[in-house]
Amino acid sequence: MSSMMKAAVLEKPFVMEVKDVVIPEPKDNEALIKVYCIGICGSDVHYYEYGKIGRYEVKEPIILGHELAGVVVKVGKDITEVKVGDRVAVEPGVTCGKCHFCKSGRYNLCPDVAFMATPPVDGAWAEYVCVRSDFLFKLPDEMSFEEGALLEPLSVGLHAMKRGKVGPQDRVFVTGLGPIGLLTIQAAKMFGVSEIYASDIVPYRQELAKEMGVTAVINPQSENVHDKLEELTNDKGIDVIIETSGNARVISDTVKQVNRGGRIVLVGLPVTSDIPIDIPHLIDSEIDVYGVFRYANTYPAAIQALRHSNLNIEKIITHKYSLVDIKEAVEIARTQKNASLKVMIYPDGGEVK
Amino acid sequence: MSSMMKAAVLEKPFVMEVKDVVIPEPKDNEALIKVYCIGICGSDVHYYEYGKIGRYEVKEPIILGHELAGVVVKVGKDITEVKVGDRVAVEPGVTCGKCHFCKSGRYNLCPDVAFMATPPVDGAWAEYVCVRSDFLFKLPDEMSFEEGALLEPLSVGLHAMKRGKVGPQDRVFVTGLGPIGLLTIQAAKMFGVSEIYASDIVPYRQELAKEMGVTAVINPQSENVHDKLEELTNDKGIDVIIETSGNARVISDTVKQVNRGGRIVLVGLPVTSDIPIDIPHLIDSEIDVYGVFRYANTYPAAIQALRHSNLNIEKIITHKYSLVDIKEAVEIARTQKNASLKVMIYPDGGEVK
Amino acid sequence: MSSMMKAAVLEKPFVMEVKDVVIPEPKDNEALIKVYCIGICGSDVHYYEYGKIGRYEVKEPIILGHELAGVVVKVGKDITEVKVGDRVAVEPGVTCGKCHFCKSGRYNLCPDVAFMATPPVDGAWAEYVCVRSDFLFKLPDEMSFEEGALLEPLSVGLHAMKRGKVGPQDRVFVTGLGPIGLLTIQAAKMFGVSEIYASDIVPYRQELAKEMGVTAVINPQSENVHDKLEELTNDKGIDVIIETSGNARVISDTVKQVNRGGRIVLVGLPVTSDIPIDIPHLIDSEIDVYGVFRYANTYPAAIQALRHSNLNIEKIITHKYSLVDIKEAVEIARTQKNASLKVMIYPDGGEVK
Amino acid sequence: MSSMMKAAVLEKPFVMEVKDVVIPEPKDNEALIKVYCIGICGSDVHYYEYGKIGRYEVKEPIILGHELAGVVVKVGKDITEVKVGDRVAVEPGVTCGKCHFCKSGRYNLCPDVAFMATPPVDGAWAEYVCVRSDFLFKLPDEMSFEEGALLEPLSVGLHAMKRGKVGPQDRVFVTGLGPIGLLTIQAAKMFGVSEIYASDIVPYRQELAKEMGVTAVINPQSENVHDKLEELTNDKGIDVIIETSGNARVISDTVKQVNRGGRIVLVGLPVTSDIPIDIPHLIDSEIDVYGVFRYANTYPAAIQALRHSNLNIEKIITHKYSLVDIKEAVEIARTQKNASLKVMIYPDGGEVK
Repeated sequence: MSSMMKAAVLEKPFVMEVKDVVIPEPKDNEALIKVYCIGICGSDVHYYEYGKIGRYEVKEPIILGHELAGVVVKVGKDITEVKVGDRVAVEPGVTCGKCHFCKSGRYNLCPDVAFMATPPVDGAWAEYVCVRSDFLFKLPDEMSFEEGALLEPLSVGLHAMKRGKVGPQDRVFVTGLGPIGLLTIQAAKMFGVSEIYASDIVPYRQELAKEMGVTAVINPQSENVHDKLEELTNDKGIDVIIETSGNARVISDTVKQVNRGGRIVLVGLPVTSDIPIDIPHLIDSEIDVYGVFRYANTYPAAIQALRHSNLNIEKIITHKYSLVDIKEAVEIARTQKNASLKVMIYPDGGEVK
Repeated sequence: MSSMMKAAVLEKPFVMEVKDVVIPEPKDNEALIKVYCIGICGSDVHYYEYGKIGRYEVKEPIILGHELAGVVVKVGKDITEVKVGDRVAVEPGVTCGKCHFCKSGRYNLCPDVAFMATPPVDGAWAEYVCVRSDFLFKLPDEMSFEEGALLEPLSVGLHAMKRGKVGPQDRVFVTGLGPIGLLTIQAAKMFGVSEIYASDIVPYRQELAKEMGVTAVINPQSENVHDKLEELTNDKGIDVIIETSGNARVISDTVKQVNRGGRIVLVGLPVTSDIPIDIPHLIDSEIDVYGVFRYANTYPAAIQALRHSNLNIEKIITHKYSLVDIKEAVEIARTQKNASLKVMIYPDGGEVK
Repeated sequence: MSSMMKAAVLEKPFVMEVKDVVIPEPKDNEALIKVYCIGICGSDVHYYEYGKIGRYEVKEPIILGHELAGVVVKVGKDITEVKVGDRVAVEPGVTCGKCHFCKSGRYNLCPDVAFMATPPVDGAWAEYVCVRSDFLFKLPDEMSFEEGALLEPLSVGLHAMKRGKVGPQDRVFVTGLGPIGLLTIQAAKMFGVSEIYASDIVPYRQELAKEMGVTAVINPQSENVHDKLEELTNDKGIDVIIETSGNARVISDTVKQVNRGGRIVLVGLPVTSDIPIDIPHLIDSEIDVYGVFRYANTYPAAIQALRHSNLNIEKIITHKYSLVDIKEAVEIARTQKNASLKVMIYPDGGEVK
Repeated sequence: MSSMMKAAVLEKPFVMEVKDVVIPEPKDNEALIKVYCIGICGSDVHYYEYGKIGRYEVKEPIILGHELAGVVVKVGKDITEVKVGDRVAVEPGVTCGKCHFCKSGRYNLCPDVAFMATPPVDGAWAEYVCVRSDFLFKLPDEMSFEEGALLEPLSVGLHAMKRGKVGPQDRVFVTGLGPIGLLTIQAAKMFGVSEIYASDIVPYRQELAKEMGVTAVINPQSENVHDKLEELTNDKGIDVIIETSGNARVISDTVKQVNRGGRIVLVGLPVTSDIPIDIPHLIDSEIDVYGVFRYANTYPAAIQALRHSNLNIEKIITHKYSLVDIKEAVEIARTQKNASLKVMIYPDGGEVK
């Protein structure tokens, strides 16, 4: 094995190049993973375009990418959970394990997390990456690497279900049908939800949602969402809304669209800060609102559920690129929001058609 | 409409006759239901055979039966929820609505409940029955009366899921594969569980469990249950056990078969009172044990989930009888436990082959 | 006993007169209560001033008032819980007991509730009132009628604790120190909270909060609330905010004042609908927001806790009036917000100094 | 600072000697603590007497003791949470931070925990001990070292409250009034419980329970516990039982003593394995049973609550000994169960009278 690998290094907005960098050496509690495939996330595109997200800023060259699966090629000396040759999914945020968030089961809120592709932590648009072994999850033979990589965005949906205490008794409405929205629909199915409604304005996404098993899709530009939901549910209404669009107007509207005593789970990050919320209605209807930041404890259940289900989460992959073509891939994700969903990168180019 | 109807009246153990009795008149908040089909439950058989269950005793003639669906034929003057002609499932326990159990969401524990076929309250092995309207649930067109009647035993399984906080992350083991055990498997599927194991000694039931989608079945007479579960789960073990057999030995064994931090849900009522439990192990492993008494708030979710699922709960129906043959039907249920599961009664005989 | 009683009847805004009206006759499941004392609530004042609150409008003459305790003087024939002579607190919202909210433990959301002094339901600024017996709670000998009447606003605070899952591990911040805010502080103490901070701009209320055991009070006009909270908590911050002021600016600010992973409980109803909320921060910090509408299942616990505690909730009573002086009493409550808190009415004038 | 310290080393049952051993050197993430005081726990006495508890066996010489507080005297290079001179309480179980128990908030179930004084891990009946810094908790100035040491057994009580979902609405019954039982009563008070009943046969302990604020004490030898509880609660009964005696008969009886829908929390470890439990009653009454194994996430809340409360947990300290007299101290704890509760050891002898 050579000591150098290819990696996509972002210098500053729009300036990203595939370079030869040193293959990292796993620490005692880490494994070195040969990346088989890795997705492009909206946050990757945002760093590529603007160089920052909120308080996180690209100040030094960084490797992006954090939705990946691959094969263990080297292990640190303390590792027993995985061995060379294992196919694994990677949970990309390595937490401290010692703060009160970590100790109480909400490790996604750990202030000392090292999360891949969040500056200044490097991600994995590269041939290899080192990961602490407790964030590696063996893939069953019947699961593909693509499914393994998609566990990351799927985890956001699963965490939203847990935050919203969603169960089979709930009628669920998912707003926004990007990759997160579509995978949230799959997550709702995994939690036994039988009536799932969704909204988006892009016909391509609406169609895919139907293929992926949504009960009905609403076009918020041409239909009155509230009335349509009442009609579709025989006036039973919506118990839980999972908001993934990040659109300010859509967020505002959720309060009026959910049932009395209902729950709103906010996943999609809006770009503006102050969004008008009808607080008197929220109080009068005793609504719950839950923010969702990443996820925790989702990988084992996701692997178990996917393995035994007939859900096809790979349907959201619309493009496949080799790492050498990463710029083209990112531009597709950036500019063709109405025709692309998940763009997948293959560092050694194998799967690309 | 005549003023008299046929009903099976139990005088004392083994003495039950189909008689003409007066059709009851619905109160202002009740509806009169023409019973389409109604199941035989283990408790019905027990009253038939022994005349009592625990503190409940048949002191005066009683009509048994409480798992039913039918059609609304008359409504009291205060009723708006249903109308004549509606197909409905019946939740058979009418609660007070005023005690602290009712007010806090655990109405199944209401001390003043009038539960059909629990002495001295009459059940519905009859052509007609009156039910308070808030315990009637409209059946969608695509649901059969049989499914409607089976919502009652299915509710026990659904309530067990809620008591055990079961979700898609759990590996579940169902002990006992009578009607309740088999429907508990369906309930687990509705809650998104993807790995469900089960045990029973009767081959017929084992086969049916496989047909109904269980991951694997264990024969506790020929296999070491604990070791087999470890093998089947790749040493992940069982997170939740739902015990439906009522067998004392099986109950004792659950404590050793569930994971550290796991949950045991006890549904099957044993005949002996003092069952040896390994309390030091329960404490050391920080296990939860939950008793299950009937159910609460299950019907709407069950209808919603069944309607959209491809679960076939009718598979557990092994015999169909007309009301006039009720004695034969009860004897089948009583004596042929290895060849019968749910025996269904049709008061007007229509569906019986 | 005469057939007529005194009652304060509101015809339209500002037009309220004490009249002779017929003493109501208890139904079979009701008791007639001789009102000993009854508080003036902000909602009563609002109806008096504006004739409506949100969708509720005074269209016909109405008797206001819903915070009361008294003595049972007559009982309907079905009543066993209370008997003539019992001293009782009254929970003023009578629910249907049959809808899915009632059945699942959230009866405060019952759409068919008859809530005293919410048009068109009469309240109890009168000598007598009829109440369904399951909403009557016996007062222990050691509890005063005043405490009994204050159980109603205290219940709002207790429900806020339950909604916010507050426990002894939490640092709590109560914004707004009107009667609800002050009683919320007592509710927090009942839930074992040891660090309670509060804010209000009125010195009189600040002082009272200190007397009632708050850890520290902040003046949001002269202090930076966020920084002050950090200082007071040694940078531990606030886990739960209970907002009772209804002030739009205060509501907006809560999102920035609560800890990562924290909870915000909204109790105070603002007059404007669209309040700007920093949704990106709410998502990034994975905050929960809970609306509070009245309360459910609070009276028994409140009686039990108050009985054994040394909390003095009567401290919030600043004025006592006879029913004949109800207009003066309401004007005090309406116009002297900085010098009055709870104004208590005594229909037979006994306690008034 | 010398390189040697005094420590009590147990060779085998009854053979324990105070020896000079090497002062341990803190790792990068550890601090060296000078032990100010450390309690004797029932488990310490059991190892001293029998050389083992369940699967844990003293195979090599071991230092016992795990309830301690002291002063930081040296810190590893990675430590920022504490500094030399800080007064700290020590949580004695160091967990892996990486298993699914640790990650989901139940770190007390971590299979790789290194728990002081559980063979083969040394405890702290010694002058010094090294502890990983995330298990050190600064004591406020107003808290004594004794309180700091007692946080350990108090944590068991606090964890029992969390496991049993105890709140101010509950009537609680604590069985067994050893140190854990008495501190469980304090824990219940911290959770806002206002009615706490307790039982024990030893008069000395009964008296102390009353002094520590229990509502009433029952003597199970001379009184019918069930009837007495009904009488004391005005037939309201007991919502939650916390069992700390470990007595088989007492454990069996809890099922009949708790309310329908109630909860039983099992803390005291019985010596026999198979304890007869009335399972039909447990099912019929839909009771919850929760095992308690140690505790998790209790120290910060305990410090916060104790600091602001007027609870006096030091009352359970009945004896104080210097480390050189450890054998006499352990013999007191072992043989005088009716006259001793918590025996406290002072390694440098300072506080001993």
